[in-house]
Amino acid sequence: MNKSAAGAQAQALAEAVAASMFARDPASQSLGMSIDAVGPGYARMSMPIRADMLNGHQTCHGGFIFALADSAFAFACNSYNLTTVGAGCTIDYVAPAREGEVLSAAAVEQSLAGKTGVYDVKVTAQDGRIVALFRGKSHRLSGAVIAT
Amino acid sequence: MNKSAAGAQAQALAEAVAASMFARDPASQSLGMSIDAVGPGYARMSMPIRADMLNGHQTCHGGFIFALADSAFAFACNSYNLTTVGAGCTIDYVAPAREGEVLSAAAVEQSLAGKTGVYDVKVTAQDGRIVALFRGKSHRLSGAVIAT
Amino acid sequence: MNKSAAGAQAQALAEAVAASMFARDPASQSLGMSIDAVGPGYARMSMPIRADMLNGHQTCHGGFIFALADSAFAFACNSYNLTTVGAGCTIDYVAPAREGEVLSAAAVEQSLAGKTGVYDVKVTAQDGRIVALFRGKSHRLSGAVIAT
Amino acid sequence: MNKSAAGAQAQALAEAVAASMFARDPASQSLGMSIDAVGPGYARMSMPIRADMLNGHQTCHGGFIFALADSAFAFACNSYNLTTVGAGCTIDYVAPAREGEVLSAAAVEQSLAGKTGVYDVKVTAQDGRIVALFRGKSHRLSGAVIAT
Repeated sequence: MNKSAAGAQAQALAEAVAASMFARDPASQSLGMSIDAVGPGYARMSMPIRADMLNGHQTCHGGFIFALADSAFAFACNSYNLTTVGAGCTIDYVAPAREGEVLSAAAVEQSLAGKTGVYDVKVTAQDGRIVALFRGKSHRLSGAVIAT
Repeated sequence: MNKSAAGAQAQALAEAVAASMFARDPASQSLGMSIDAVGPGYARMSMPIRADMLNGHQTCHGGFIFALADSAFAFACNSYNLTTVGAGCTIDYVAPAREGEVLSAAAVEQSLAGKTGVYDVKVTAQDGRIVALFRGKSHRLSGAVIAT
Repeated sequence: MNKSAAGAQAQALAEAVAASMFARDPASQSLGMSIDAVGPGYARMSMPIRADMLNGHQTCHGGFIFALADSAFAFACNSYNLTTVGAGCTIDYVAPAREGEVLSAAAVEQSLAGKTGVYDVKVTAQDGRIVALFRGKSHRLSGAVIAT
Repeated sequence: MNKSAAGAQAQALAEAVAASMFARDPASQSLGMSIDAVGPGYARMSMPIRADMLNGHQTCHGGFIFALADSAFAFACNSYNLTTVGAGCTIDYVAPAREGEVLSAAAVEQSLAGKTGVYDVKVTAQDGRIVALFRGKSHRLSGAVIAT
């Protein structure tokens, strides 16, 4: 198989894994997330901020911003069809976000060595401003996400 | 005012702030969280894990564990009635949690200097096992949470 | 062996491991660190701030505060005589420290499940003020630190 | 002043600030660090691993890897000649490094909003492998680093 065919296969696998994971992920679904793009070591998801996602300061509760970033991280780190879980994460809030805005989270693999990976997720609003920066550390378990 | 009276007043203020914040926090409410205890620099909250909180691995999505810890952190760091927001957080997942379990998050102030505080939140399940360890950094804005 | 004898044995093992690790740790030695206390899942170390540890702001370079905390973390997480390395850490700087001050770092185990542990390290100055809060995540490798 | 001239001026300022900071930074000097490149919101530094930087596992003590990353972070976030300090950092160790290797740390600004910035630092060895990923959060104080 040449390089281009291998790339296309990796891309197809990433998409199949994402579709399967999303179908059995009530959390991401009930939060209104959608998968905008996925590839090997990469995922981009979006989520509109609903009224029930606001905190006492009338801005989006950090937990929902985190959940969006965490889901993008999960889809990126499982994209090779090797079951992988989050071991730990950090998030830095850069700017508040408000009801009606649509947040986008792009997860990019920074390193993958042995069973451990590091993924950076940038959460932005539609006007391009950065809302949060998330870093997730992944740990690969045994087993595949989907049968191939 | 003697020390005991000051303590009682600080406790009453923490409770009043928490009640007001919770009343206008649709996120914490819609996730089924409840405030179990609150005091100066302290808060303990709980949340049952619902079916719609599960991820593709059929364990509680990290975003909801984070949201519970983040809410406990928010109530703890606003307990002095000085408007305070989260600036950044880290979470380490220690053990998975499953549908039907009730998670408890206890937020304890570790340091508070100038406008910046550090709070540790331990998330445990009913059997006592640690599910996650969260650390939040707070930043005080101007203004009070409630009128006194 | 009764409980008390087991505790004494664990304590003796922690001390023997620490002595061996410190003897072959040029970094901690050259930085002037000393081990003040060690036990199962616990270590406390101290380090005087020297002139060559100052940064451009004439306060202790964060790297040396980190190094002290990181060493205390290493001695705590290797105290069971199971070779363990740091997988990742976070540090929050709470107050600056100056030349001549002696910093103390106390590392306490927060959780240990499977091969992974979480340790919190509080770095304080002699006047009791908190200088930094560090959290280390450990990963156990195979093998023992010392022959027993 | 046209855009190109403004860029050249910002670059010259970043270099002047870096030279001044480095001259009064005994920590970075005594650790054998050198500044390889600096610019607005950017710095790259390197450091050879010496025998006295090894830990009990005969790999580079995490504190020195951290110190290199932390210095690159400091030079990057002070590059606008606005006095800025680190508020908190995270580091994830990806691969061990050994005596004689030369580590390189490249710090890149990810966001800067108000007084707070986020900088990512990638620490690599000469063979290109990633040794550690560091993220620093900066806080701007009042005052300039150098008189202009």
